[in-house]
Amino acid sequence: MSERPDPQVRGFRAAGVHCGIKDDGPDLALLVSDVPASVAGVFTRSTVVGAPVEWSRRCVRSGRGRGVVVNSGCANVAMGRRGQRDAREMAERAASALGVRASELCVASTGVIGEPLPMPRVRRGISAAAAALRPEGWRAAAEAIRTTDTYPKWASRRVRVGGRLVTVAGIAKGSGMIEPNMATMLAFLATDAAVRPAALRRVLGSAVAESFNRVSVDGEGSTSDSVLLYANGLAGNAPLAGPQTSGAARFAEAVTEVSQDLARDLARDGEGATKLVTVEVTGARSAAEAERAARRIANSMLVKTALFGGDPNWGRILQTVGAGRIALQLPRTRVRLCGVEVFRRGASAGPAARRRAAARMRSDELEVAVHLGAGRGRARMWTCDLSYDYVRINAEYTT
Amino acid sequence: MSERPDPQVRGFRAAGVHCGIKDDGPDLALLVSDVPASVAGVFTRSTVVGAPVEWSRRCVRSGRGRGVVVNSGCANVAMGRRGQRDAREMAERAASALGVRASELCVASTGVIGEPLPMPRVRRGISAAAAALRPEGWRAAAEAIRTTDTYPKWASRRVRVGGRLVTVAGIAKGSGMIEPNMATMLAFLATDAAVRPAALRRVLGSAVAESFNRVSVDGEGSTSDSVLLYANGLAGNAPLAGPQTSGAARFAEAVTEVSQDLARDLARDGEGATKLVTVEVTGARSAAEAERAARRIANSMLVKTALFGGDPNWGRILQTVGAGRIALQLPRTRVRLCGVEVFRRGASAGPAARRRAAARMRSDELEVAVHLGAGRGRARMWTCDLSYDYVRINAEYTT
Repeated sequence: MSERPDPQVRGFRAAGVHCGIKDDGPDLALLVSDVPASVAGVFTRSTVVGAPVEWSRRCVRSGRGRGVVVNSGCANVAMGRRGQRDAREMAERAASALGVRASELCVASTGVIGEPLPMPRVRRGISAAAAALRPEGWRAAAEAIRTTDTYPKWASRRVRVGGRLVTVAGIAKGSGMIEPNMATMLAFLATDAAVRPAALRRVLGSAVAESFNRVSVDGEGSTSDSVLLYANGLAGNAPLAGPQTSGAARFAEAVTEVSQDLARDLARDGEGATKLVTVEVTGARSAAEAERAARRIANSMLVKTALFGGDPNWGRILQTVGAGRIALQLPRTRVRLCGVEVFRRGASAGPAARRRAAARMRSDELEVAVHLGAGRGRARMWTCDLSYDYVRINAEYTT
Repeated sequence: MSERPDPQVRGFRAAGVHCGIKDDGPDLALLVSDVPASVAGVFTRSTVVGAPVEWSRRCVRSGRGRGVVVNSGCANVAMGRRGQRDAREMAERAASALGVRASELCVASTGVIGEPLPMPRVRRGISAAAAALRPEGWRAAAEAIRTTDTYPKWASRRVRVGGRLVTVAGIAKGSGMIEPNMATMLAFLATDAAVRPAALRRVLGSAVAESFNRVSVDGEGSTSDSVLLYANGLAGNAPLAGPQTSGAARFAEAVTEVSQDLARDLARDGEGATKLVTVEVTGARSAAEAERAARRIANSMLVKTALFGGDPNWGRILQTVGAGRIALQLPRTRVRLCGVEVFRRGASAGPAARRRAAARMRSDELEVAVHLGAGRGRARMWTCDLSYDYVRINAEYTT
């Protein structure tokens, strides 16, 4: 959200420029560490992936890298060999402008699928972005990776690790095709903490599981989802090597918090969204079943339209849980909307409760809490409502 | 569709009346055989089911019955003991008006969840419907089971079975919460063929698998889905006892065809739908994976909004298949929209193909065909587009 302070991380520079992939607005970003850094990445699990994801997957394998070059406006997906060539050239151009090796730079592209990258513009953009790099360039980079996002997204935390103050910061873009198991979402995080690559991978994996993988806008995953975390060590702490290292837990928590800030922003700014919705499921037979229930609720078109309408419709919530064949004990089941219990002991809590809930549901942040009475499993998801604008944006989007 | 002839089946009478559960329009229906009949039923697999489903499940267990009493406007779901009492009373009232046993009558209710049935009105409605029963009453019954359906749905077939001409007819309602594995959909079929209960169960099971379970409006299943098939034997054929009996295959085909006619109507008349969409997946690793791919396409909000917009967006189609982690060979993958190949050999078929597809997509019946190039599995689904009206209907629906 815009009230958050602009991020800045020792030894990282960022830039965002307009090069003409999109008709207007910045569309090319760089985020680079001045010194070699540890890197970890999490990518889409789709069976259809873009050439940039293929490139970046190879790129992070060594655990070391410098940064990432990103464009919006064109996803470079389903373009065959040409796509692979273009992704590689993006890394090479940026690398030569920065004086590093191409294999040290990840590539990410987001936007229309099935169209070729306008490489002459991309080349110009990379040169311009390299020239524009500066420590306070994060906001410009966050602007440049937007597609249908209505606002740029960034977040940061400061924590003490091994006696040193370290910063964790990140930018993200989301909007459409947002779903569990990653989405057309890109997130780039950086920290000046010193962290060994294997430890960084574990930290990022668990942060993603508790943040980006808990967000759903429309139940879709994309071909281009990528989350990268760079750690350049300039804070000077003794390198974090595992969960036992002093400060490791605090560092992991900071990464998770930054990721969750960004993830909530993705849900809040889902295409056409008017409300950020937190779904809490408790009392499931298992954590996995709680997650499945939470995902069903978060993805249900009937629930999401009811939330858009401000309707305390517990019937649709229970119906989608039931349709997922998720175990529940109806007489022990409770549904709470924005803190108001509207369903309990197998029945409606009555019209007064419904009215109280409806009044609170005018807020732009809603809470849906369901207790299934079948066990101790619990899970949380973030989503948004389904509005006329979602239909408008996606029916009128030109591919 | 309305051009279809009104159904009529020897020895069955039907009626639909207005009793005031809904503000206006008929809301109570009866469908009854003059003589005891074989009966088979398929019900929702949700873990949250309405009292009427509980009653009817018991009711069909014997394989014999007389008919069904149905109301729209109130689903009688999540009403605890009161709901069970009301469902039983509906059967009892109808049974005493008809001179049969309550256990011979199934009950189905559809509409708002969590509100009690207005039993004084229901009682009056049952008396009025019993008095209004007539052989040509199917259309009235089809009208009375509607909720947000924009038109009543019926279908019929005549086939020769064991030397006798038999009729298979049915009515259905759908609209919201329509999904794979049944939906808030009710369908009641009847035939004058003589069929043993076990054979009838098999015939209905496979007809449902190829029809109602292949329809998706919004990926939701409901608490009240019920399909019933009555066979009263008045055609005088030698009773069908299994697939080997003469005419059994033709009879099964007729039941499947009637079910498919009704299922397609459910998709065509999905809430807010402007287009009936047939999704065909071929070349999947297995039939199960083909079905999963077809369901993902049919349920994808991004695909459905693109279809509403008439956009030949093969990117979204492949993306939702990929996100489901369904195996495909991109270089052998093809996407055909309304007969026009828009994606082939791993790339777009170009702007001319796109324009041709876009022109054909103005039709109100669309075909999405995807070949995955990974095997021989195939599956078909019916669905509809996602329009502003879906959001309007479901955001403004009052529970």
